[in-house]
Amino acid sequence: MIIGLAQHLKQDFGIDFHEQSLLDEAFTHASYVNEHPKQNLKYYERIEFLGDAVMQLCVSEYLFKRYPGMPEGKLSRLRAAMVCEDSFSKFAKECHFDEYIRLGKGEEKSDARQRPSLLCDIFESFIGALYLDQGKDEVVSFISKVVFPKLDLGWFDHFFDHKTALQEYLQQDGECQIDYKLVAQEGPDNERRYRMAVFANGEELGQGTGYSKKAGEQAAAAQALKKFGQAATK
Amino acid sequence: MIIGLAQHLKQDFGIDFHEQSLLDEAFTHASYVNEHPKQNLKYYERIEFLGDAVMQLCVSEYLFKRYPGMPEGKLSRLRAAMVCEDSFSKFAKECHFDEYIRLGKGEEKSDARQRPSLLCDIFESFIGALYLDQGKDEVVSFISKVVFPKLDLGWFDHFFDHKTALQEYLQQDGECQIDYKLVAQEGPDNERRYRMAVFANGEELGQGTGYSKKAGEQAAAAQALKKFGQAATK
Repeated sequence: MIIGLAQHLKQDFGIDFHEQSLLDEAFTHASYVNEHPKQNLKYYERIEFLGDAVMQLCVSEYLFKRYPGMPEGKLSRLRAAMVCEDSFSKFAKECHFDEYIRLGKGEEKSDARQRPSLLCDIFESFIGALYLDQGKDEVVSFISKVVFPKLDLGWFDHFFDHKTALQEYLQQDGECQIDYKLVAQEGPDNERRYRMAVFANGEELGQGTGYSKKAGEQAAAAQALKKFGQAATK
Repeated sequence: MIIGLAQHLKQDFGIDFHEQSLLDEAFTHASYVNEHPKQNLKYYERIEFLGDAVMQLCVSEYLFKRYPGMPEGKLSRLRAAMVCEDSFSKFAKECHFDEYIRLGKGEEKSDARQRPSLLCDIFESFIGALYLDQGKDEVVSFISKVVFPKLDLGWFDHFFDHKTALQEYLQQDGECQIDYKLVAQEGPDNERRYRMAVFANGEELGQGTGYSKKAGEQAAAAQALKKFGQAATK
């Protein structure tokens, strides 16, 4: 039994696991199993396989319902930004899951406990265990606290394509000529920033700054969308 | 409303859709929407996005529970063989979904109705619509009739690695020397077939034939597993 894990889940997330063995499996790395051959332990990979699919569905369903007008291509890109190693490893850290992983000594020495790929795996295997133990509604309740609020905190904003959103908004009633122009370059060579402006049929709609011309264009488009009361995500 | 579809689902699968509009959306291609701009129609891509994730989870959960001893790598490969364009397009045909797709005239002319990628999309969007209309249990009930029995019919057998399964079986109690040898070549040059035999510590366990040496080895390993009462999948 992994000491403290069940209590941590109860205290911090109100989750009361029925099958402790599922929780143990979800937090046990193969290297630990190999070092304890007589204990007949299981490692997390099979539960992680399931948890990955559970996350895909829960996030897909949430996005599908939250953004009823968003085309499939954007939904897919947004899901990819949320369901990925980078995001999951951050969620795992935030939930302090790293403190409860059972690792072999060699892995421990090579600092595997802080490796994003392992943290991502553990987040998925925890989700798989929670799904098996308590069903999908309980998973949705958990990720409604840990994952979905990050959308409103702007974690995935870099993923939205403001230029395309602006183009779609401006051209919904017919053709419209959109141009981006460099307004100024700021800062020293190694930290050069580009201020870009966006124009629709010659009229300036907004300006924005970025560390590349492209990033500046995105910032300018976001600024223009704000002016029209349109966010790229909505 | 797509004529005959609701009745077909009721008669052949006992499925009674509550929201007809979901069904219409799931079977409508973008080309049809474009040709009927005044009807304010929706096309299937958003529902397909959801249906894809629903299938991933339902198949993952089924495999996870059916094969409790199967390692994650094999589970993933088997899932990939089941959740793919080739399989889904066949399921769609078998369910006669191709007869109900609403297509634009240009697409109809280019024979899109029989294109595997479209059939696959429609199978996924149907699953998405069924999930939204009736929930996951009803989806599992449907694919228990249409998808899961194909496992027992051998549809995905080509995906199992009999050589690895044989090796795992033979080496479970210690080392064992496994060799494959060419026994005979049969047929003309352009249809050459290779008969291979498999040996464990010098004892012949089985023979098999294939259009490559590798395929012959797989067939020989499958034959040996049969002898031991072991299928590669179990």
